[in-house]
Amino acid sequence: MPQSWYFSSLLAEIAAKSDSEIETIALDVILLTISLIFLVSKIGAEICVKLKLPAVLGELIAGVIIGVSGAHLLVFGIGDAADIPNLWQDFLHNIYGLNQSDALRVFDFNEQVVSLLSDIGVIVLLFEVGLESNLVELLSVGPQALIVATVGVIVPFTLGTLGLIYGFSIPLIPAVFAGAALTATSIGITAKVLGDMGQLKTTEGQIIIGAAVVDDIFGIVILAVVASLIKTGQVRFDSIIYLILIAVVFLVGAIVVGRIFTRFIVAIVDRMQTRGQLLIPALIFAFLLAYIAHRVGLETIIGSFAAGLVLAETDKGEQLRQLVAPVVDLIVPIFFVCVGAKTDLGALNFSDREGLILAIFLVLVAIIGKLATSVSLWNTSLNKLAVGVGMIPRGEVGLVFASIGSATDLVPDSIIAAIIMMIITTTFITPSWLRLVLKKSEQEQLT
Amino acid sequence: MPQSWYFSSLLAEIAAKSDSEIETIALDVILLTISLIFLVSKIGAEICVKLKLPAVLGELIAGVIIGVSGAHLLVFGIGDAADIPNLWQDFLHNIYGLNQSDALRVFDFNEQVVSLLSDIGVIVLLFEVGLESNLVELLSVGPQALIVATVGVIVPFTLGTLGLIYGFSIPLIPAVFAGAALTATSIGITAKVLGDMGQLKTTEGQIIIGAAVVDDIFGIVILAVVASLIKTGQVRFDSIIYLILIAVVFLVGAIVVGRIFTRFIVAIVDRMQTRGQLLIPALIFAFLLAYIAHRVGLETIIGSFAAGLVLAETDKGEQLRQLVAPVVDLIVPIFFVCVGAKTDLGALNFSDREGLILAIFLVLVAIIGKLATSVSLWNTSLNKLAVGVGMIPRGEVGLVFASIGSATDLVPDSIIAAIIMMIITTTFITPSWLRLVLKKSEQEQLT
Repeated sequence: MPQSWYFSSLLAEIAAKSDSEIETIALDVILLTISLIFLVSKIGAEICVKLKLPAVLGELIAGVIIGVSGAHLLVFGIGDAADIPNLWQDFLHNIYGLNQSDALRVFDFNEQVVSLLSDIGVIVLLFEVGLESNLVELLSVGPQALIVATVGVIVPFTLGTLGLIYGFSIPLIPAVFAGAALTATSIGITAKVLGDMGQLKTTEGQIIIGAAVVDDIFGIVILAVVASLIKTGQVRFDSIIYLILIAVVFLVGAIVVGRIFTRFIVAIVDRMQTRGQLLIPALIFAFLLAYIAHRVGLETIIGSFAAGLVLAETDKGEQLRQLVAPVVDLIVPIFFVCVGAKTDLGALNFSDREGLILAIFLVLVAIIGKLATSVSLWNTSLNKLAVGVGMIPRGEVGLVFASIGSATDLVPDSIIAAIIMMIITTTFITPSWLRLVLKKSEQEQLT
Repeated sequence: MPQSWYFSSLLAEIAAKSDSEIETIALDVILLTISLIFLVSKIGAEICVKLKLPAVLGELIAGVIIGVSGAHLLVFGIGDAADIPNLWQDFLHNIYGLNQSDALRVFDFNEQVVSLLSDIGVIVLLFEVGLESNLVELLSVGPQALIVATVGVIVPFTLGTLGLIYGFSIPLIPAVFAGAALTATSIGITAKVLGDMGQLKTTEGQIIIGAAVVDDIFGIVILAVVASLIKTGQVRFDSIIYLILIAVVFLVGAIVVGRIFTRFIVAIVDRMQTRGQLLIPALIFAFLLAYIAHRVGLETIIGSFAAGLVLAETDKGEQLRQLVAPVVDLIVPIFFVCVGAKTDLGALNFSDREGLILAIFLVLVAIIGKLATSVSLWNTSLNKLAVGVGMIPRGEVGLVFASIGSATDLVPDSIIAAIIMMIITTTFITPSWLRLVLKKSEQEQLT
């Protein structure tokens, strides 16, 4: 539908700014936004690679530069027309003649769509990680992954909680809260670095991925416990058991039923004749498992990972990896740029020196707590440090803690700021550190 | 972020239904909606192919079945919570505990996102058509394409307008209006059928594509003329000249500047080292050209088509075609299913027999008007009928006429209904007819 600046003036005389006009403008705006995200992510990634840094770090920094801490071109969660960044306000007003309220509608919708594409991006990323994983290898490293996940949850939680109580005189509940926020690893960044370096299928890679899945489940259980603790002052053991049970049932179910189901899919695919015959059924499977995982209380990415894992086992695995690659290339940068864009460095405005020390303490515990997992590995030929470093990034679950905390009076602002600083630091240091540790081990093997 | 039925009840006690909760639910809903679209499009396509019908017809019918004329699973333009289809209402209420107004937010957002993905779908489709076209061939058939486009605009416009005035005693302005709605070909369906049959690169294929591009420009000019006629009662020749000029400048500019720019892109791509090094710059180029086309008053698809056309000329053309294919496989079905879903058979509720006769008249003129283009071709070895049939589908531009018409008192409802019937009929008959005509010519060549 044509809708130029010349043309819209004509139409505007016939009817007032209609929903369909807003939708047409929204299409323009999303085309520009996606182009911008593509452009900065590619520039960021290429510069980092030239500097021997991981590509994903470039995408994150590109996001910071255009995001809430930078140029304000990609900002999320604007509630009011007055809050729309000036550049956008001017653009929507001068180019499209939108008033404040219509500008808010377009801006809001655009950010929501980008956010959604980013969510789908990480679902597709973990689907690819599943496709590049090996179920047999993953199960064989299962016990080690379980230990890594357990140690990586207990150590930062204990160190964090006790340190805050005895070192900073923080009361029990906010201390437990902050300790809990230190537990869950965010797998996206580590998976991307491992994938880019072709190390997903190594034993270390599979331990990290396996541990991250288990750790995600622990994170959700802890979140439920802490939420219940804050709300009612007590812990409901029935709900803990229920959550663990449902996670185990989902994972085992997805793999057992999935293996039968994928055979069925593959058999149908062979008889299909239209375009997308393999990719579309595979993505239906991934999206539905992501949906189910989400519904039973897990993260979507566990579902799409499981889908990739069982599809990798079929004889279509290799073909599917090739088909998914261009889709990943397009949608995953949106995720990483959004992570960067949402990084609010302004939240790190520590009011006092004690607040800063508290934040540094949490960052150190976050790092040491996961490095401790290295010690727990018994296989001496492994690159243990890589496993520990790979588990360091914290993300969404930590942010959920921060947002629940902000909504209550029980958790002081200094703790919220410290949690955010912990997430930012662990997110941004991991790519380079992990790459360094993996490179070193490659060189040692060569010499 | 985890948000199960168990879990959300806990969070709900801490804070009221927040924006982030709505966003989480929106993610669930979009995962289900996309899975549903994928599923029905694949089932529809496969059934049609088994029945020796074109795949795209199956996707359109699948859309009708789940759309506004069918199961109401994919409905667009709901203004009020009370209008949300029952299935959705129940689903959002029972599963997510949403009240009416939150349900409307989620439902509305979901439909807008799907609509947007559908718009991006047709942009990507025409990008692929451009990639599979040949600029030299297209320019060599230029004169013939120009004739086809001109005849295909003049004949239906004249037949339609005069027929309505003298046969149905319709006044001049609504008659001109209906005549104008008959002019612009919608290229998506024909391009898909040609592509699926590997006939995009034939002379006939290139004539159709070239004619559709020119015809699109004519359509926009006519739309401007008629809109101005309805509004002011007179035709502004300066704006006609302006629109034609801008279209020519855009097309020539996109190709000339594009050819230089793509050389630059290709040179950079060769030095890039990160994933998506070819696909992402290519899509930035396509999206930006689509945006510019839209801004200067043309359709987005002309921009992405031009981008594909110049990129096809580079030595990365073949590689790019392979990378774009899986993306097309995923996003294009969303477009065709949406076209089907938006098809409102209820609008065909003709109140009187005369209304039905009027509609049948418009359908016949729409078909005959484009078949007349066959006669205008001078190259006797061509499959002329295929060119004529390929130009038959009408779409978006016709719908714009219908929506402008509904907003004025000048155009009677019977004409609006007839225009909608004309669009539906031409959309649904073309795939099979075109396939038949092309198959026949293949068989004749073989014998």
